[in-house]
Amino acid sequence: MKQKLMNVLINDRSQHPERLNATPERILEVLENISKKNMNEYSKNIRSILGTSPKRQEITQDIAEKICNYLVSADIPDDILLFIADQLIASEISTDEAVEMHETYKIPVSTLEKDLVPVSGKGCWLMDTKGKTYLDMDSNYSATNLGMSNEEIAKGLYNQASQLISMKEDRVQIARTRLLKTIMPMMPKGLNYFYFQNSGGEAVDKALKIAKAYTGSRHVIAFKNGFHGRTHGAVSVTWNEKYRKPFGLDHEDWVHFADFNDVESVRTLMEKKNAKIIILEMIQGEEAGNLAATQTFMDELFELAGEKGAIVIADEVQTGFGRTAIKQNDWFACMGYNVIPDIMTIGKSFGGGYPVTAVVTRKEISQAMKGGYDGSTFGGNPMAMTAALIATRQMRELDVTGNVVARSRQFEEGLKHLSKKYGLPGEIRIRGLMIAFSLGSSERVHAVQEALKDHGVMSSLSTDKFLRILPPTIISEKEVTYFLEALEKSIQDTM
Amino acid sequence: MKQKLMNVLINDRSQHPERLNATPERILEVLENISKKNMNEYSKNIRSILGTSPKRQEITQDIAEKICNYLVSADIPDDILLFIADQLIASEISTDEAVEMHETYKIPVSTLEKDLVPVSGKGCWLMDTKGKTYLDMDSNYSATNLGMSNEEIAKGLYNQASQLISMKEDRVQIARTRLLKTIMPMMPKGLNYFYFQNSGGEAVDKALKIAKAYTGSRHVIAFKNGFHGRTHGAVSVTWNEKYRKPFGLDHEDWVHFADFNDVESVRTLMEKKNAKIIILEMIQGEEAGNLAATQTFMDELFELAGEKGAIVIADEVQTGFGRTAIKQNDWFACMGYNVIPDIMTIGKSFGGGYPVTAVVTRKEISQAMKGGYDGSTFGGNPMAMTAALIATRQMRELDVTGNVVARSRQFEEGLKHLSKKYGLPGEIRIRGLMIAFSLGSSERVHAVQEALKDHGVMSSLSTDKFLRILPPTIISEKEVTYFLEALEKSIQDTM
Ligand SMILES: Cc1ncc(COP(=O)(O)O)c(C=O)c1O
Ligand SMILES: Cc1ncc(COP(=O)(O)O)c(C=O)c1O
Repeated sequence: MKQKLMNVLINDRSQHPERLNATPERILEVLENISKKNMNEYSKNIRSILGTSPKRQEITQDIAEKICNYLVSADIPDDILLFIADQLIASEISTDEAVEMHETYKIPVSTLEKDLVPVSGKGCWLMDTKGKTYLDMDSNYSATNLGMSNEEIAKGLYNQASQLISMKEDRVQIARTRLLKTIMPMMPKGLNYFYFQNSGGEAVDKALKIAKAYTGSRHVIAFKNGFHGRTHGAVSVTWNEKYRKPFGLDHEDWVHFADFNDVESVRTLMEKKNAKIIILEMIQGEEAGNLAATQTFMDELFELAGEKGAIVIADEVQTGFGRTAIKQNDWFACMGYNVIPDIMTIGKSFGGGYPVTAVVTRKEISQAMKGGYDGSTFGGNPMAMTAALIATRQMRELDVTGNVVARSRQFEEGLKHLSKKYGLPGEIRIRGLMIAFSLGSSERVHAVQEALKDHGVMSSLSTDKFLRILPPTIISEKEVTYFLEALEKSIQDTM
Repeated sequence: MKQKLMNVLINDRSQHPERLNATPERILEVLENISKKNMNEYSKNIRSILGTSPKRQEITQDIAEKICNYLVSADIPDDILLFIADQLIASEISTDEAVEMHETYKIPVSTLEKDLVPVSGKGCWLMDTKGKTYLDMDSNYSATNLGMSNEEIAKGLYNQASQLISMKEDRVQIARTRLLKTIMPMMPKGLNYFYFQNSGGEAVDKALKIAKAYTGSRHVIAFKNGFHGRTHGAVSVTWNEKYRKPFGLDHEDWVHFADFNDVESVRTLMEKKNAKIIILEMIQGEEAGNLAATQTFMDELFELAGEKGAIVIADEVQTGFGRTAIKQNDWFACMGYNVIPDIMTIGKSFGGGYPVTAVVTRKEISQAMKGGYDGSTFGGNPMAMTAALIATRQMRELDVTGNVVARSRQFEEGLKHLSKKYGLPGEIRIRGLMIAFSLGSSERVHAVQEALKDHGVMSSLSTDKFLRILPPTIISEKEVTYFLEALEKSIQDTM
């Protein structure tokens, strides 16, 4: 036990090159985390051992030994010592320090979420620095659909990094070959030409370039309330002006926003601007509260594109990899709509959490690109390909799409039941496990989200009006039940 | 031995989730790789065992057993059996299949490099599917400065992926805190506000957004022969028209190209366009054959910017992390010039090969960004932060900048000596280990590059006129000598 404690106070770097030594503040915080178990006295003694150890710095060997000696000689039950060790393994840095370092040194492009600091996770569950666990209903915006940690991907990445940690996009390599050999059955028919990228925004940006090269036209029809990422290209086709205006990207003459689910508005704009490129999310996520295209709109839109010789880019960064399945093997939203886009962007959980995305298209369009037209240092690197190989195989073997269909039904029934029981005014939008649930007012949505947290559930919002429910696509029946019960309690708490 | 062979033919997925079973073609290729050792007869027999196994598909247990039984019963020396096993571990897929899968399914944005297919590497050395080794003088465009594989990063990533595989950019987490705690001593003074991204192009794209938000002006001065990446934003400030024209990005009214090393041309453009943003590579890599800014130009440029209230973005994606050190602890090119940019982009070997990049700036500029202005699913994720933590620590502990300074001198002496000895017409451009060596004509450069490959050295080109030498920054004295000898032979071969 003493050795175990020593190894978490003074980090054994040969085993944990990713960790540092514990700080005084974290040691005291861990003791506080179990203060209900009467650790106050121990805390006092340890505080005096820590004495004038420099603030927020790694403790020395000497101090660590004194703490260990004290801890094992005091009559602390073994299970508590074990808990202390586990908490220090989870993090050797205090919550306050983590929060302050982010608050200070993060360029504040987004609002910092600091209500809890996650340290580890398994499946749909997260644990924070306080040792509290949460059911995850956000999946990091759908990036960790296969859960918060992944032993098989961890092992694959270990092997790959020990063998060949990177390789430039333009060179033939083995890991990419493996992925290409195995992923084809998941792809929409004919969409099997890949350009791998690192983020969703980058994939969208490059998809636009490919579409422009193919059509010989710069003009793009995008949709109101659409969201496509943040690079100059991706944000230009994103509706919300507040994402564009600060950067002078609110007057791009090549982007034209049509009304979603309204083919006539698309037709009018296309004709007026002679546009040959259409980009859309089939289920609008970030900015529209998970609003799904109607089947009629999809049919008409693809017919219109055919008629005008235009191409359709489906941004499936969020909707893909089973997230929106309405039947088994709907790996992408387009499959549920029975349409095949000309270009598709995919990402998020493609690598089970590893940053890997892609532009996918059919042969004819791919040939519009010539050597030198683009390039990428990290695109399709062997680590990314390994993560994607293992993640996509897991998706197939776990029948993720089948699970999404079943759990989606369970959510729908549960949410409808609650809506009726409590006379909720809100709308339920559900396509696979891309779910939004409005509760009348924005205040109510925020209040329920807070209450859910008290009941051990992490959720997020889509716009200010919808509670967003994007659970890992591997969520179990029991976990959905857990969520629905927590939601009911939260509704009661906020009535 | 039989078990070892079995495990590489039929992959033990619990140990190697990243691999597949061997294909018939790869098994035969491996035997061919040692054909000098008279394997032809064995090949024949194994070919008949493989019989009608489906082409390029994973072999069955049954076939694998027959092959193993045959191999161990034939009188093949153990070291050859071991070599066979190692080659199959290196790749279970044949070179031809790897090349064809890339040729077929890669969107051809760049020219496919298929002359050799790397499977593994250690330090500055690569091994290909044929079992041939090469000294690496390219570092994947400077992404693998710490070598082709990295056991410590592998272990850290394994631990991180088992504990918490991803976390969104906007949430506080521990791995990022660790990096922030340790990286500060490497940063130029005051540049300690970070926005983490996934690719260099993305970092540049976001740096431009931040600069635009801060200055309230869209207009940007970039430089002729500059290169900054491929997203809409990054490629717009990249000089070469062939990278922009196919996408209609050759008429961006907000970009103005000045002459490099000519401050008057910058002044004129700035005044004419009232531009408040300057972006540059201090050593122009991709498109200019590693052309370094003069000290005078740097001094004048920063003075001009100060005078006009403009800000300077230094794109240090390629020049950073010791690559261009001229004295110890020059972690970034700006340090060698004694100037501090307002915004800096960093990437490439930041994560030792893992895709992680960042925009870095000072506090005042960072505050121009507000919550919602940007966002990123994978930016600053815990895997990226772990890779960066370990990679940057290795850089400091290995005294990478000290090594770069010493090896740079060695290269310079060696290249000058060869230039003189063979009366070469070419120019030697050298700043740290960012080296370009012209040989008169483009034909000669290509010929020498080919000859180098025959002598076991992989290099690349910068423009068509320069042999580009970007060795891992950890290269040893002996390895530089090996390179210089191979270069001398290659010069002789091509005379
Ligand atoms: C539809 C869609 N496209 C693109 C993106 C951008 O992806 P990333 O954050 O990986 O750049 C997102 C992210 O939320 C998205 O939902
Ligand atoms: C100076 C510079 N900026 C940006 C980039 C783009 O980096 P990435 O390929 O990671 O997008 C590069 C890549 O070569 C570069 O050299």
